[in-house]
Amino acid sequence: MRNSRRGSVDPFIVMDVMEEARRLEEAGRSIVHMEVGQPGTPAPEGARARVAEAMAQGALGYTVSLGLPALRQRIAALYGDWYGVDLDPGRVVVTNGSSGAFLLAFTAFLDAGDRMALGTPGYPSYRQILKALDIDAVEIPAADENRLQLVPGDLAGMDYQGLLVASPGNPTGTMLDRDALAALIADAQGRGACFFSDEIYHGIEYERKAVSALEISDEVCVINSFSKYFSMTGWRIGWMVVPEDRVRHIERLAQNMFICAPHVSQVAALGALDSIEELEANRAVYAANRKRMIEGLPAAGFDRIAPPDGAFYVYADVSALTDDSRALASEILNKAGVAVTPGLDFDPERGARTLRFSYAQGTAEIEEGLARLSDFMARRGPGKA
Amino acid sequence: MRNSRRGSVDPFIVMDVMEEARRLEEAGRSIVHMEVGQPGTPAPEGARARVAEAMAQGALGYTVSLGLPALRQRIAALYGDWYGVDLDPGRVVVTNGSSGAFLLAFTAFLDAGDRMALGTPGYPSYRQILKALDIDAVEIPAADENRLQLVPGDLAGMDYQGLLVASPGNPTGTMLDRDALAALIADAQGRGACFFSDEIYHGIEYERKAVSALEISDEVCVINSFSKYFSMTGWRIGWMVVPEDRVRHIERLAQNMFICAPHVSQVAALGALDSIEELEANRAVYAANRKRMIEGLPAAGFDRIAPPDGAFYVYADVSALTDDSRALASEILNKAGVAVTPGLDFDPERGARTLRFSYAQGTAEIEEGLARLSDFMARRGPGKA
Repeated sequence: MRNSRRGSVDPFIVMDVMEEARRLEEAGRSIVHMEVGQPGTPAPEGARARVAEAMAQGALGYTVSLGLPALRQRIAALYGDWYGVDLDPGRVVVTNGSSGAFLLAFTAFLDAGDRMALGTPGYPSYRQILKALDIDAVEIPAADENRLQLVPGDLAGMDYQGLLVASPGNPTGTMLDRDALAALIADAQGRGACFFSDEIYHGIEYERKAVSALEISDEVCVINSFSKYFSMTGWRIGWMVVPEDRVRHIERLAQNMFICAPHVSQVAALGALDSIEELEANRAVYAANRKRMIEGLPAAGFDRIAPPDGAFYVYADVSALTDDSRALASEILNKAGVAVTPGLDFDPERGARTLRFSYAQGTAEIEEGLARLSDFMARRGPGKA
Repeated sequence: MRNSRRGSVDPFIVMDVMEEARRLEEAGRSIVHMEVGQPGTPAPEGARARVAEAMAQGALGYTVSLGLPALRQRIAALYGDWYGVDLDPGRVVVTNGSSGAFLLAFTAFLDAGDRMALGTPGYPSYRQILKALDIDAVEIPAADENRLQLVPGDLAGMDYQGLLVASPGNPTGTMLDRDALAALIADAQGRGACFFSDEIYHGIEYERKAVSALEISDEVCVINSFSKYFSMTGWRIGWMVVPEDRVRHIERLAQNMFICAPHVSQVAALGALDSIEELEANRAVYAANRKRMIEGLPAAGFDRIAPPDGAFYVYADVSALTDDSRALASEILNKAGVAVTPGLDFDPERGARTLRFSYAQGTAEIEEGLARLSDFMARRGPGKA
């Protein structure tokens, strides 16, 4: 047996941090986890209650491929609640998490050899999934002055068949406003390219609402998930919204590639959609954490940050401290007992001089983490080691 | 937005049958379902109890990509119980159903443009998934005298990089014995090609045990699932076993393509592995159903069948009755009130003269279905319409 070329993807550098953190914890050290990309909270109580009830009842066999009709309806209704968009439930496709949505969307809309434009820094799995599907990932460094989001000028003179954006972004938490998003959609549509909008962090916003690509155009592919706002990472349940005339094409492909999303997770998702109060309480925790982070990180010496509009990350430029973010992350882990993510997973070039801090855990843990970072930096001093 | 070529897969013909059956039921007709490919039973009680317990406890966040260590250990132990094979749990990869396993295995081992040899009739999604991944599906008609399984002679003079077999097969239920399986593995290994063994129907056997490719060689990729024997279709949980030196490669790819299999389904799977008594009772029902089918179908006039070794299907040659299995299936549905699957999904050529009958439902339903088929054929008479 041989390995394929397409399947030979890069390792996650954060995995080394996580493994080192695990070893330190096994050895008795206390570690604050600012490296994780998932809520510290479980699925909402309403979701878990719905699943517990279902366990006493009948079979949870295959669902139809596009998802339970009731769930597709509730997701469509969310677009009314969140954005004032009247969405046909027939355009909603329930998927195996946003991961399943990427696999489905990229194969449905792009062929091998096509080019997908996307900005760095960004979610590392984009480029690995694209590689596995033989789509060329054309990564474009987004500018600091655009808060690390792409603008049409970045795409000038490029040939691409797909354009992928995320707002709020990971690792930055920065958002595209309506005009900026509309300009990118227009750029893609003007070339006959597919526009993919990763909206997985929608619902986790602080000072203004995130704008959905669906507020601007129906001719887009929107990807979202129950993992983040709905606090259901391990359930692997997400969704896409696609143009009406593409639904049948997607359905056939989904039948073959996935059969359906996990039935039990679809049941849980229905419960989560009835748990907005609990989810808003989670969001209030993130908001409190964010406040502490955007005060505490600069006070500790991590002062080159853009306050995030959404998600639960702060992305810090640490070029004044190091040219090797991996070594700095290891030093912080060992000396301060705080696990953080080197930027290299998100940006193979500039990520050597950045760190991502997650504030998805409880507020007490965030405060402890900030105190440790502050002590560490006071001992370490400014400048490069 | 445009459709990709790779994503433009064929519709399932059985979907038309299912839709027609649904309409008839809505109109008040009673329909016996011999078209379904899933158990009529729910996940075992032990699985559901485990999930209900978990709902009262903490978060079900992401698991590590390869799956919960306890689950990988229990799956490895199954190879001891079932085949007497001592399997390292480190070689077990928990996946999002066998669908997820195919996506992962095919991208891990094959590149775009590579050729995958597989026999017809077979599971239709193989060729659609391969198409979506730009792998050439080289479909080879398997011979009646080989009970519709491939033999090395079928592969003579062919160039291929992957060989995929299923034993017991769908739609036939026929199995490869140890020598036949070993000969195919040797053919693939002799060319340096990857050997994929779809063992999803293992555990559902009648007169002799199915042979796992792992009894013969470690240099194979085995795919299995909790869907069939463990009666957990909608949970989307399966697994692969891969050569030890391929695990790291697969793990990196799985981290990016799937993050992990549904945590809740992994919990349920642990419970299912403790529910062998209930699952053996399910198997006894399939065995009773099979007995009725292999007596009742010939008595009704469907006499060109190979008694299945495993799974819960009978594949019938109906060339004496029709050259249009789709029309015959529609006629049987409307006149007899029995939904059956035209062979065209499994074999685009010869499937115009075959039908698949599933006996995965309860015995009373199977008996009713056979009585209806018998009445229908008595009214219809032999020969082509």
